[in-house]
Amino acid sequence: MADRYSFSLTTFSPSGKLKQIEHALAAVKQGVTSLGIKATNGIVLATEKKSSSVLVNSEFIEKTVKITPDIGMTYAGMGPDFRVLTDKSRKVAHTRYKRIYNEDPPTKILVTDIARIMQEATQSAGVRPYGVSLLIGGHDDNNGFMLYQVDPSGSYFPWKATAIGKGSNAAKTFLEKRWNEELELEDAIHIALLTLKESIEGEMNGDTVEICIIGSQNDNLLGFEGAEGVSGPRFKKLSPQEINDRLDAL
Amino acid sequence: MADRYSFSLTTFSPSGKLKQIEHALAAVKQGVTSLGIKATNGIVLATEKKSSSVLVNSEFIEKTVKITPDIGMTYAGMGPDFRVLTDKSRKVAHTRYKRIYNEDPPTKILVTDIARIMQEATQSAGVRPYGVSLLIGGHDDNNGFMLYQVDPSGSYFPWKATAIGKGSNAAKTFLEKRWNEELELEDAIHIALLTLKESIEGEMNGDTVEICIIGSQNDNLLGFEGAEGVSGPRFKKLSPQEINDRLDAL
Amino acid sequence: MADRYSFSLTTFSPSGKLKQIEHALAAVKQGVTSLGIKATNGIVLATEKKSSSVLVNSEFIEKTVKITPDIGMTYAGMGPDFRVLTDKSRKVAHTRYKRIYNEDPPTKILVTDIARIMQEATQSAGVRPYGVSLLIGGHDDNNGFMLYQVDPSGSYFPWKATAIGKGSNAAKTFLEKRWNEELELEDAIHIALLTLKESIEGEMNGDTVEICIIGSQNDNLLGFEGAEGVSGPRFKKLSPQEINDRLDAL
Amino acid sequence: MADRYSFSLTTFSPSGKLKQIEHALAAVKQGVTSLGIKATNGIVLATEKKSSSVLVNSEFIEKTVKITPDIGMTYAGMGPDFRVLTDKSRKVAHTRYKRIYNEDPPTKILVTDIARIMQEATQSAGVRPYGVSLLIGGHDDNNGFMLYQVDPSGSYFPWKATAIGKGSNAAKTFLEKRWNEELELEDAIHIALLTLKESIEGEMNGDTVEICIIGSQNDNLLGFEGAEGVSGPRFKKLSPQEINDRLDAL
Amino acid sequence: MADRYSFSLTTFSPSGKLKQIEHALAAVKQGVTSLGIKATNGIVLATEKKSSSVLVNSEFIEKTVKITPDIGMTYAGMGPDFRVLTDKSRKVAHTRYKRIYNEDPPTKILVTDIARIMQEATQSAGVRPYGVSLLIGGHDDNNGFMLYQVDPSGSYFPWKATAIGKGSNAAKTFLEKRWNEELELEDAIHIALLTLKESIEGEMNGDTVEICIIGSQNDNLLGFEGAEGVSGPRFKKLSPQEINDRLDAL
Amino acid sequence: MADRYSFSLTTFSPSGKLKQIEHALAAVKQGVTSLGIKATNGIVLATEKKSSSVLVNSEFIEKTVKITPDIGMTYAGMGPDFRVLTDKSRKVAHTRYKRIYNEDPPTKILVTDIARIMQEATQSAGVRPYGVSLLIGGHDDNNGFMLYQVDPSGSYFPWKATAIGKGSNAAKTFLEKRWNEELELEDAIHIALLTLKESIEGEMNGDTVEICIIGSQNDNLLGFEGAEGVSGPRFKKLSPQEINDRLDAL
Amino acid sequence: MADRYSFSLTTFSPSGKLKQIEHALAAVKQGVTSLGIKATNGIVLATEKKSSSVLVNSEFIEKTVKITPDIGMTYAGMGPDFRVLTDKSRKVAHTRYKRIYNEDPPTKILVTDIARIMQEATQSAGVRPYGVSLLIGGHDDNNGFMLYQVDPSGSYFPWKATAIGKGSNAAKTFLEKRWNEELELEDAIHIALLTLKESIEGEMNGDTVEICIIGSQNDNLLGFEGAEGVSGPRFKKLSPQEINDRLDAL
Repeated sequence: MADRYSFSLTTFSPSGKLKQIEHALAAVKQGVTSLGIKATNGIVLATEKKSSSVLVNSEFIEKTVKITPDIGMTYAGMGPDFRVLTDKSRKVAHTRYKRIYNEDPPTKILVTDIARIMQEATQSAGVRPYGVSLLIGGHDDNNGFMLYQVDPSGSYFPWKATAIGKGSNAAKTFLEKRWNEELELEDAIHIALLTLKESIEGEMNGDTVEICIIGSQNDNLLGFEGAEGVSGPRFKKLSPQEINDRLDAL
Repeated sequence: MADRYSFSLTTFSPSGKLKQIEHALAAVKQGVTSLGIKATNGIVLATEKKSSSVLVNSEFIEKTVKITPDIGMTYAGMGPDFRVLTDKSRKVAHTRYKRIYNEDPPTKILVTDIARIMQEATQSAGVRPYGVSLLIGGHDDNNGFMLYQVDPSGSYFPWKATAIGKGSNAAKTFLEKRWNEELELEDAIHIALLTLKESIEGEMNGDTVEICIIGSQNDNLLGFEGAEGVSGPRFKKLSPQEINDRLDAL
Repeated sequence: MADRYSFSLTTFSPSGKLKQIEHALAAVKQGVTSLGIKATNGIVLATEKKSSSVLVNSEFIEKTVKITPDIGMTYAGMGPDFRVLTDKSRKVAHTRYKRIYNEDPPTKILVTDIARIMQEATQSAGVRPYGVSLLIGGHDDNNGFMLYQVDPSGSYFPWKATAIGKGSNAAKTFLEKRWNEELELEDAIHIALLTLKESIEGEMNGDTVEICIIGSQNDNLLGFEGAEGVSGPRFKKLSPQEINDRLDAL
Repeated sequence: MADRYSFSLTTFSPSGKLKQIEHALAAVKQGVTSLGIKATNGIVLATEKKSSSVLVNSEFIEKTVKITPDIGMTYAGMGPDFRVLTDKSRKVAHTRYKRIYNEDPPTKILVTDIARIMQEATQSAGVRPYGVSLLIGGHDDNNGFMLYQVDPSGSYFPWKATAIGKGSNAAKTFLEKRWNEELELEDAIHIALLTLKESIEGEMNGDTVEICIIGSQNDNLLGFEGAEGVSGPRFKKLSPQEINDRLDAL
Repeated sequence: MADRYSFSLTTFSPSGKLKQIEHALAAVKQGVTSLGIKATNGIVLATEKKSSSVLVNSEFIEKTVKITPDIGMTYAGMGPDFRVLTDKSRKVAHTRYKRIYNEDPPTKILVTDIARIMQEATQSAGVRPYGVSLLIGGHDDNNGFMLYQVDPSGSYFPWKATAIGKGSNAAKTFLEKRWNEELELEDAIHIALLTLKESIEGEMNGDTVEICIIGSQNDNLLGFEGAEGVSGPRFKKLSPQEINDRLDAL
Repeated sequence: MADRYSFSLTTFSPSGKLKQIEHALAAVKQGVTSLGIKATNGIVLATEKKSSSVLVNSEFIEKTVKITPDIGMTYAGMGPDFRVLTDKSRKVAHTRYKRIYNEDPPTKILVTDIARIMQEATQSAGVRPYGVSLLIGGHDDNNGFMLYQVDPSGSYFPWKATAIGKGSNAAKTFLEKRWNEELELEDAIHIALLTLKESIEGEMNGDTVEICIIGSQNDNLLGFEGAEGVSGPRFKKLSPQEINDRLDAL
Repeated sequence: MADRYSFSLTTFSPSGKLKQIEHALAAVKQGVTSLGIKATNGIVLATEKKSSSVLVNSEFIEKTVKITPDIGMTYAGMGPDFRVLTDKSRKVAHTRYKRIYNEDPPTKILVTDIARIMQEATQSAGVRPYGVSLLIGGHDDNNGFMLYQVDPSGSYFPWKATAIGKGSNAAKTFLEKRWNEELELEDAIHIALLTLKESIEGEMNGDTVEICIIGSQNDNLLGFEGAEGVSGPRFKKLSPQEINDRLDAL
């Protein structure tokens, strides 16, 4: 009988639960594993690219995205919902921050805005919650490198390392053992690959794993010399080759 | 059969109850304990920061917030709803008071506005009530230090000391025994820590407890000297170190 | 089976009843007792302030409110709904009368406007009726002192003396015996206290009872001398001390 | 099973009935009896003022209302709905007639407008029908004195004499026997009182019965002399004394 | 089980039926009989005026209406719906034709517009179909005299003679036997009365039957002489006396 | 149980069906047979005019309509829906084509627009699909004569010859045997009559069958001589006499 | 019982599924097979044209469409929904790209926009998901030739070769065996025809199969010489003859 409370988008069940949010979390749990690790000098976000067929042109699949030059995002759950949130995140970064202050939003402020968008979908009539959990990594001058997880309820927390999706429980246990305060970015990538290896089905290589990092400034991406006083983006996606090199080195 | 009255967002059951509000209170009862204590020279708001994992970066979690320089707020219940109410509280403080009178709203007026926002969610079609109870502490020249609790129904009351969330019943009994009219702010913090200790699971320290106070004016926060005739904010969040020091002194 | 007619906000049951209104009345019946008495030279409105805890700061609770300088209001039922109606009453007094005629509305006109607001909530789709009954006392030059009761249906009647809420039946019987045409305001306060005494649980004093009167003009509230030709408000709330004095004299 | 057709506000049952309208008529049937009689030189509208308590200040209750100087209205059924229709009737008399033609609407045109308002509530989604039947009496130069009854369906008919509410069946039978084409207004008042006497519970006097008449022009109500060419209103409410005098003469 | 398709206003049942329309037709079938006959030199529309009581002032009841000077309309079914359609018909005749072309719409164009209004009520969400069938008779220079029947579905057909309402089946059989191509208007009135006589309950006379005709131009209705080149309306309602005269001649 | 998917206007059943569309097709299947045949030099559209009574004035019934001078349309299913689509088709031909390009739309473009209108009624909330299938025949310079069938789903196909409505299956089989690439328009009319003869109930003549053709330009319809360079409409409705002549020649 | 989650357009089932999307996929699975193959120098999109009758004028059926000069699209599932998406795709290509940048959108950007439109239909209240899967092939300077499949959920992936609709499983297996990195466009067409042959029912020829290619620039389509610096469209539909020639060469 408790099931009947699942219908209405925004009502509480007698036990104070919002069932639709719990079901959305179930959608997240069906997604492939994604994880994020915060290191002293950067953040790594990693996720599995699961192809339903060898004919999928996996090199063009994009599961980690750049929101601002210094903030990246990945997800577990429903891909189309992730893309919608990607669009809205980029827009909100611009309209509610950059357009006003002429600089990109700090990680936490962007995360708050995205979380608000996701919360609204749990209280408004007629829309369902988003079927994704997000991992957002970024850097700003005040707080340095920060890693956040945002859930379908709009709830968010800062993490040292975390995992979402199908293999998240095992991955978190694994991460708890490996993570320490002195972790360097390269070590973090190393741990990310080891963690994914536990949960991935099929072969693991630069085509079936996607990794982005928020690290030091890539000034080389600013053109020949760049404008004075401007620094390059911290967001960088690892190429399949860079992933394979590291996998060989495991 | 009475359960069926839970569906409709805004209808009365035959006994004159609004069931959705009662279910929202159930959501509050599932939240970790928060409490507020009014002392002669200040207010203390304290809450537990429960982490689902050691990897959560708890130092960046924020469960007590500043609404105006002299008003702070914490909650029990659903975090995302609290954040939405935080945003709306800050906005309403500005648009319905400061923009008009060029000073921050007195505590009671702000509380009335927040309570109205919460009431509307219980009478309008298509939205659910907010799943939080709020503790709001503030200071204004007319009424001095005031502590309010606002519930999902939009009902609010002024308190000398109160608690909400999972351990609220025990905490209130505890507070009734300890509170007296001559309580100083430091004693109130002491009692707050003792009360939380009863209900907290796991270790209690500056990372797992969050405390803010509305006390004397922190003129040091006004810059080198501050503008003439301006006084600093009364809202102050205790650092983990400040909490640990007090815990050691228990 | 008749229960099913409770769902739809605005449909009639086959017997011609609007069930939601009856359920709203049930909500009123759960509220603490309030009463009003019309005397030859004034109106008294009295209500119980029931505290759930000794820690509630009852001196700041406000259950009788001033709508215009000469009109006061109290209620039985849901506090948050009362506050919403208080706001709307003050607004409607201004926008539909004072702004046009440059004087405050007579009691009956204000009552009609409030009753219309409450009726609309019983015929519009998607909103529930208000869960309060109101007692409104006021004075105007045409009709002198008038006391009205407005119910969730939007139905209103003028009364000589009436009571609403949990103990209203007993209170009305009591009032019928005591009321007479020559009653003076002080006697009315006396009767009000005696009536409340019948229904109140726990101790009765200036902290647990709230009383306001519409009496003679309080010119002293106009400042040093007041503007010429202006008279002070007739609305006056009794202080806890004033209540206690009268209780002692019972 | 037929009951289920009661839910939807605007659907037909298989037998071609609009159930909500029939239920609204049931609400009318629960109201106290009202009646109207057309005489050669006027109309009388009479209704019972039923008080739930001796403390009700019945002299201020108003169940017959003036819509234009020459048109009056009473009702059986839900009081708050009557008041809403009173407001709308006055407004429509002004906006759809007087504002355009600079004179008050003839009775039939006003009745048509009110009936349209009531019909709309039976076809629009989301609103319930009005829970009242109306008796409208008026005079205009074309048709002389006219008496109409309007039902919740928006259906209206002109009558020589009619009754609505709880005792309407008996009252109509009574009226059929007494009414004749030569009836004078004073006789009509006499018959009205006799008819009400049959259905009224409790004592019948100027406080428990309300009567208005549309008769000859009350030029005395125009001020000292009135503007030239202007005649006084035909609507007049009988005072309790005037009713008692007639009751004594029965 | 098929009954459940009755609820939704605009869905098809599996057999391709719109049940609400069929139920609206049932409402029509409960109305008293109305009929229309087209003659070589005019149209007659006739209907029964059924009074629930001898006190109904039947001379003021109006069941046949003039839409334009040359088009008349009657109905079977729900009176309030008929009045709404009368208003809309007059309005649409003006706004969609006369205002543009400065002459009244031909019968067929007006019928098309009315039928569209009735169709819309069968496809839009949230409104019920109209509970009436209409008989519309008119004259225009192109098509001469035309008689149309419009049903709740918005379906319309031109007829030589037709009947709607309770006795329509018998009436149609009767009309099929009597109608011929050479029928003159006076014969048509004669047949109309004979047909109604079959179905009417109670006495038949000028008070219980209403007849309008669209015949030759009544230039006498244009004032003393009328404007040059203008002809009088073809619509004419028979007086009770004119009906009684013809009844006597049956 | 599968039936329950019929309620919601726009949801898929588990088997991927939109039931409302299938039910709308059932409505089409209940309509009388209509057919269209494309010949080398024209299109013929033919349909039965079924009268419920001999009193129906069938000469004024119109089941084939002109949309533009060179495009005609007929239907099977619900007449009122057909008329609405006729209005919308004429409007869309003007607003989305003629107003822009100053010439009438080619057949296919008009068909696409009509099909879009019908598709929208299958995806929007709150409206039902149209209960008609359309046959649209037209001519334009690019594609010459074209015949399209549009179904309630908004699906359309070009046909050489097709039939819809009650007898469509038999009619299609018949047409498949008779149709060939060299068919002339007169032969097509001949075949159309033969096909209808199979399905028609009752007598077949110029009053019970309606036929329109899109053939050569009827320059005679342009007035005395017509404007230079302008050609007459290709749409022409056969008179009952023209139909009877051809029936005699069968 | 799980079936009941199918009703609400946008709610999650407890297992985290959006059932409406799965049902829409069922609609896709009922469509005839379509496939796309990416070659080194082009893309081929092929689909079956299934006619319900020999009288369908299949040469005018269009199941592959041009969106921009360099992007083509086909589908499996509901034809009317495909046409709506075709319209929206062309519009979005213009309004969100060409109007701004004065060049046609790259394939991926257009695909993202279309996928967003399809996602929205899965999260908004009151609309159903689109009942089609799309194959989109295009060319742009950055990524060269790209082939995408978009599903009703709004999910899209880049493919080397893929198939959708009734025979998609078998077709994909077939394609996996045949596809290789060096495939030339002509080989791809060859494979497309072989693959369709497996699933097609009835004869396969230029009338029952539709093929479009995105290949080299067809400068011949630019007019006599074209504007300087402008190149012809890459989209080209094969004529029935071109298809038959290739079928003969199989």
